[in-house]
Amino acid sequence: MGHTSVLSTRRISPRGSPPNLRRTPPKFRKVLVLKEKRPAEIEDPVMDELLLSSKLKRVDSATGCVSPRVASSDALPIPAPTTPRQAQKAPKTPYVILPACDAFEKFRSIRRVSVDIGGTLIKVVYSSVTDEELPEESLNGNTRKYAYEDGKRVLVNFKKFTDLDRLINFLKEIWTDRKSGDTIHCTGGGSYKYSEIIMKELGVRLQRTDEMRSLIFGVNFLLSTNVDESFTYHHDAVGRNKFQYRPIAADLIYPFLLVNIGTGISILKVDSPTSYERVGGSSMGGGTFMGLGSMLTPAQNFDELLEMANRGDHRNVDKLVCDIYGGAYDELGLKADLIAGSMAKCNRFGELPKKQAHKPEDIAKSLLLMVSNNIGQMAYLYGTRYNLKRIYFGGYFIRQDPITMRTLSFAINYWSKGEIEALYLKHEGYLGAMGSFLDEDGKLDD
Amino acid sequence: MGHTSVLSTRRISPRGSPPNLRRTPPKFRKVLVLKEKRPAEIEDPVMDELLLSSKLKRVDSATGCVSPRVASSDALPIPAPTTPRQAQKAPKTPYVILPACDAFEKFRSIRRVSVDIGGTLIKVVYSSVTDEELPEESLNGNTRKYAYEDGKRVLVNFKKFTDLDRLINFLKEIWTDRKSGDTIHCTGGGSYKYSEIIMKELGVRLQRTDEMRSLIFGVNFLLSTNVDESFTYHHDAVGRNKFQYRPIAADLIYPFLLVNIGTGISILKVDSPTSYERVGGSSMGGGTFMGLGSMLTPAQNFDELLEMANRGDHRNVDKLVCDIYGGAYDELGLKADLIAGSMAKCNRFGELPKKQAHKPEDIAKSLLLMVSNNIGQMAYLYGTRYNLKRIYFGGYFIRQDPITMRTLSFAINYWSKGEIEALYLKHEGYLGAMGSFLDEDGKLDD
Repeated sequence: MGHTSVLSTRRISPRGSPPNLRRTPPKFRKVLVLKEKRPAEIEDPVMDELLLSSKLKRVDSATGCVSPRVASSDALPIPAPTTPRQAQKAPKTPYVILPACDAFEKFRSIRRVSVDIGGTLIKVVYSSVTDEELPEESLNGNTRKYAYEDGKRVLVNFKKFTDLDRLINFLKEIWTDRKSGDTIHCTGGGSYKYSEIIMKELGVRLQRTDEMRSLIFGVNFLLSTNVDESFTYHHDAVGRNKFQYRPIAADLIYPFLLVNIGTGISILKVDSPTSYERVGGSSMGGGTFMGLGSMLTPAQNFDELLEMANRGDHRNVDKLVCDIYGGAYDELGLKADLIAGSMAKCNRFGELPKKQAHKPEDIAKSLLLMVSNNIGQMAYLYGTRYNLKRIYFGGYFIRQDPITMRTLSFAINYWSKGEIEALYLKHEGYLGAMGSFLDEDGKLDD
Repeated sequence: MGHTSVLSTRRISPRGSPPNLRRTPPKFRKVLVLKEKRPAEIEDPVMDELLLSSKLKRVDSATGCVSPRVASSDALPIPAPTTPRQAQKAPKTPYVILPACDAFEKFRSIRRVSVDIGGTLIKVVYSSVTDEELPEESLNGNTRKYAYEDGKRVLVNFKKFTDLDRLINFLKEIWTDRKSGDTIHCTGGGSYKYSEIIMKELGVRLQRTDEMRSLIFGVNFLLSTNVDESFTYHHDAVGRNKFQYRPIAADLIYPFLLVNIGTGISILKVDSPTSYERVGGSSMGGGTFMGLGSMLTPAQNFDELLEMANRGDHRNVDKLVCDIYGGAYDELGLKADLIAGSMAKCNRFGELPKKQAHKPEDIAKSLLLMVSNNIGQMAYLYGTRYNLKRIYFGGYFIRQDPITMRTLSFAINYWSKGEIEALYLKHEGYLGAMGSFLDEDGKLDD
């Protein structure tokens, strides 16, 4: 039986346009680029404002202590700005600042581009440079340096696409100084399927990183670099207290379980950046929610479907414990409003009239709870099996949706009796692209 | 990621009419009984002929040895038939013979009736008496005695209903000699919800057995009494070799995992007939398959939906590993035809035309695989967690359907690397009713 969430909570901010990698064979692709007819995708921020703000409570993931919020500007002298020969502004889209170190120094002059082509979405991570002074962060007083001596900062930018043509057009626009010897970093299933067209269209080489390796590199980098990367969700708290940042010191990150929710899900046991194993997976992920939601509701994209779910009442379509028992099943501790059978009230077999009318909002809510509950329970089972106390969720499914996070957190808390913590990631959808961005040892196609 | 079954296998025999406990409030029920308009339910056998035959291979569940098939008539002298005063014939519907022992002796003169009212179906188990000589079974030479000195044998009969009115009418017909002091044994959620109407209509007392206790009593009795109760399914074998009876000596039955698939699923760790725990559950069970199947296909009942699934090709609606990777993902050992995302090809978001046409058969197949894969994986995870080597499946979901059994067996074998065995039960749907039938200590309502 799953968790039931009776009240619909409004999404904090509507977000993004939807999925679907167009699966036209490469030979027809060029024609399609020219014939592109669909309206321009509405561009919108990946993270919502609440989570972009740094004013949320921080609770150290390892110690449980509330961390002081020390801006590095308080702790470190700000380097004197060099002459702004050619002022490069910080972007308006989401970014992370790369620490100023030898490994990343080259990105001051060379653009790095990485794409993660999944079953539904294409995620892009690319570098840019800015002269602007940006807010810098410190973790429990451990200060970091972000600006190079010349005052430049290297940023990592995040962007998602729903089809390959748009991605290629975008990359042609931003990556004007690319040369034939340059390399685009790739990961995800589509990095095999679409490698030829990407190389041909952009005239660059392609370096491929294994998908799991990319995920781990990405999550490792984001957790250890971006202080406010991970957070917990507390449904019963009010307003921004629902979210708590959970910074963790780099040497305490491992081990953990990573549940990556894409079209389906992959479950990874991660012991270090180089030691990890895909211990399980499931075919019930974002693709199932969208596929069933596509057929059973008039929603036109993932966000509409999520928004619908937030307005729906799943009790009209799910059979609850009270529908079967007339109340709670106390002997087993099953509450009256617990879901006994997802979608089970939609069974019209043997009934007159033949068709029952169910509201699409209610169906959307039930589907979201069904998929989220199932992922949460499976995550708990793998977490327990390997005795891991923290489960991070990655992939582009959660999107800080309160129902999803509440359901996942509830399932993990319920089944583990509070022993395991569910953690979310600001850049949940970009772990693979981020990891591929960082990888220097991928396999080269050319 | 789940298991993909590419070939549709025909069902061995179509079976039974479908679900739905009519949920009309008790006050209107009487009117409905009178106004009953629906065509008479087609009555059909619960078990298919192949499984009713005793000619299948028997492999001892504990030792793995092929067991000899010794009919007790070879080992025991047949008791001389007494004068057939009033010859009572054996029924044509499925039955099990109760061993001739003190505990059951009273059923020669008193009718015992037990019902299990679930979220979707009502299952009835009732006793009858026959003078006929019936085939008797022995387990590895351990002979049993079935006939009393007077030549009578007590049978346990099995029947299912989809609504309460029909059940009550049926009981009124067969239980003509009931008196106000008699007791009907009940279990399942509906034994609370419908107790008053049952007592009122039949004029008897109601004794309730806890649902989990019923399940365990039932499975214990059937496994230890009915030699050919449990069996394994082997998809790659031919004809009747696909099935193997798995008798097990009564002292080797425990421990095991019992996964009961009803509207949702319950997972029980069973250490003895009196020591068991509901360790988990899920809201994705038969109710989900039927609810989604109801909305997405024109099937009119569970069997039509199953039959549709057997004709369908899930590759048209599921995203496979090859749809994302262009082939297998060898590094992770994920085969090309493995399901990456259930129903994920039905996602029409961002696509023109807005509606894709998917065949209901393909959808039914995908739904069946999705639910079965998920149950199989969850069963494996709980089995591993408690180090149990045998998983028995109960509930009215499987119905000896080859796709379902193949998927469950595959999932358990795949994930456990052959360490855990999936076992099916002939009387899968009657565990609760059987257990309540046997229970002498239930709680009395009157």
